Amino acid sequence: MANPSLLILPGDGIGPEVMAEVRKVADWFGSQGLVFDIDEDLVGGAAYDAHGTPLTDATMEKAQAADAVLLGAVGGPKYDTLDFSVKPERGLLRLRKEMDLYANLRPAQCFDALADFSSLKTEVVSGLDIMIVRELTSGVYFGEPRGIVTEGNERVGINTQRYTESEIARVARSAFELARRRGNKVCSMEKANVMESGILWREVVQKVHDEEYPDIELSHMYADAGAMQLTRWPKQFDVIVTDNLFGDLLSDLAAMLTGSLGMLPSASLGAPMANGRPKALYEPVHGSAPDIAGQGKANPIACILSFAMALRYSFDRGDEAARLEKAVEAVLAKGLRTADLLGEEGRQPVSTSEMGDAIVAAL
Amino acid sequence: MANPSLLILPGDGIGPEVMAEVRKVADWFGSQGLVFDIDEDLVGGAAYDAHGTPLTDATMEKAQAADAVLLGAVGGPKYDTLDFSVKPERGLLRLRKEMDLYANLRPAQCFDALADFSSLKTEVVSGLDIMIVRELTSGVYFGEPRGIVTEGNERVGINTQRYTESEIARVARSAFELARRRGNKVCSMEKANVMESGILWREVVQKVHDEEYPDIELSHMYADAGAMQLTRWPKQFDVIVTDNLFGDLLSDLAAMLTGSLGMLPSASLGAPMANGRPKALYEPVHGSAPDIAGQGKANPIACILSFAMALRYSFDRGDEAARLEKAVEAVLAKGLRTADLLGEEGRQPVSTSEMGDAIVAAL
Ligand SMILES: CC(C)[C@H](C(=O)O)[C@@H](O)C(=O)O
Ligand SMILES: CC(C)[C@H](C(=O)O)[C@@H](O)C(=O)O
Repeated sequence: MANPSLLILPGDGIGPEVMAEVRKVADWFGSQGLVFDIDEDLVGGAAYDAHGTPLTDATMEKAQAADAVLLGAVGGPKYDTLDFSVKPERGLLRLRKEMDLYANLRPAQCFDALADFSSLKTEVVSGLDIMIVRELTSGVYFGEPRGIVTEGNERVGINTQRYTESEIARVARSAFELARRRGNKVCSMEKANVMESGILWREVVQKVHDEEYPDIELSHMYADAGAMQLTRWPKQFDVIVTDNLFGDLLSDLAAMLTGSLGMLPSASLGAPMANGRPKALYEPVHGSAPDIAGQGKANPIACILSFAMALRYSFDRGDEAARLEKAVEAVLAKGLRTADLLGEEGRQPVSTSEMGDAIVAAL
Repeated sequence: MANPSLLILPGDGIGPEVMAEVRKVADWFGSQGLVFDIDEDLVGGAAYDAHGTPLTDATMEKAQAADAVLLGAVGGPKYDTLDFSVKPERGLLRLRKEMDLYANLRPAQCFDALADFSSLKTEVVSGLDIMIVRELTSGVYFGEPRGIVTEGNERVGINTQRYTESEIARVARSAFELARRRGNKVCSMEKANVMESGILWREVVQKVHDEEYPDIELSHMYADAGAMQLTRWPKQFDVIVTDNLFGDLLSDLAAMLTGSLGMLPSASLGAPMANGRPKALYEPVHGSAPDIAGQGKANPIACILSFAMALRYSFDRGDEAARLEKAVEAVLAKGLRTADLLGEEGRQPVSTSEMGDAIVAAL
């Protein structure tokens, strides 16, 4: 059988640095017999610089063919003035859309060794483990009509929120499936009190629940109340399912609750391919952090844990994923910290590559 | 000169209870010579029960004519199954839209006596004082087309985000004006990296700044990053300006940071009327809290502080507003707490009306 294939898209800013550490980890698994066929290519600003587009058709084809895609980060001030259609983000959005990665899994987990880091009280976040499932291929991110048009003597900015029943149903199923392997609870968030798309969302999620997952405890919450409840007492949640735009805000909020953004991975999954694996893209939750790029300060853990998610969700290697996650915890427990994980304590930070090496050593 | 007129719309749930305490406060000001002509009417579920609509045309006319409107809260489980068009919320949304109340002022202030209450670390929130200015009459709340339509063999939920240049410019001006009287800083939040309406938003806010308010420090942030930064270190902000939907989530998030939702007022302001006063509606940030309605447990402070905002923004009575705010602080400093403000300490809660009486006594 051919080795599983992995397309690595380091992207911009700290993307290349953190991805270099993932390659060390992948090499270690290779030395243990789990060999990946790794290809690497450009995305985002890096692709724009080389080709005038944030994602070439050739790269898109490679992504479609790969067993899994691992992405670093896109964007940076250098590209802020670019036209909307060629901004770094469009490369990422094109990958999501054309690979039809409709379920974005965003775990928000608080690592014991880092609970102090949160701006929230320790008892509010310690042991926190929630999973946000964000719809990723529809909604206001992709709805038409969109654009800036002139009406009378002024311009109008227009975007369209659109959700079909089947788009809602499939991401709801992803959430219920995950809940079955976790705490059996799903909370769905929308603004059904204000938006018709939210009314349909609530109705379809309820129907999928009643017909296919009656064993799961389902609740509904308005997204504004959801933001409040996440802040007040996040441990009340197990799995949260929500649309693309609310998911963007709420998953970032949930990530920040843990206090350590540099730790959080994500997976974006689509329908199963011919080989049974879901189309999949993995990426850290943090951005490209241009302010610290190239200085060896970045924390590679979020990207390494994204690779762990790939092991689990794309390659059915749950044991290896758990082993990697344990190695990360062990390194943290030893006190190793990149600069972003240091408080007032006056400890010395380790560099990006020292952190990567330590994790490989702990494996 | 005629007395200033006030239309009181207690609404649903705890609305009537907390409004009764506001009337005590208004009566006290009356006894000092600041007499209001007060009328009272129905809104939300209460109006639906009486008239089959969450806001009658007659009430709408009264609201248009009043110098200021004070609203309690709308909604409740009893009305959850009502058709979208007659839900309690539609009454509130109609008031906002037809009075053209485009600037929703949502202060998030942390009261020293209550800082412990926040789920955030005390040092993160103590002394917090930010003002969120949310656009309130446009965006996805009101954009057309909207609805649930059938396409092929399935239904599609549709809403439209629409912002014109002038809609953005006027709310930006509100934010800059407020900043001049506060910390001279405005942060504007949108998703210009994903939404064209966000691109126009950013551009217009920048233009209003450069042409009319170059003295104010302006920054821009993506709304997801905004949610993160509000959670991480909210004191970095002074005034935040954002659209209707982002403002809904972000202002609730900011409110929850303070830990005491029962304390937070809001003002929704429109253009000046013939008498120079802005069209205005004041309401507490908390909802109708049906679970505790009618039990004398509700905290009337948010509604009383909304009346203080009315004194300041509608009646140019900044001194009286400050006096009322000080009375509230004095009562809290004495240790009086409604049930929502009690932690583990085992103190006895005071009732809604005891709290109102104490505030009047402190005046
Ligand atoms: C980079 C940006 C386009 C993206 C989004 O808005 O989805 C990011 O914020 C995310 O959450 O992955
Ligand atoms: C009650 C509801 C319609 C309203 C809104 O979504 O605007 C509320 O959440 C608010 O923020 O005032």
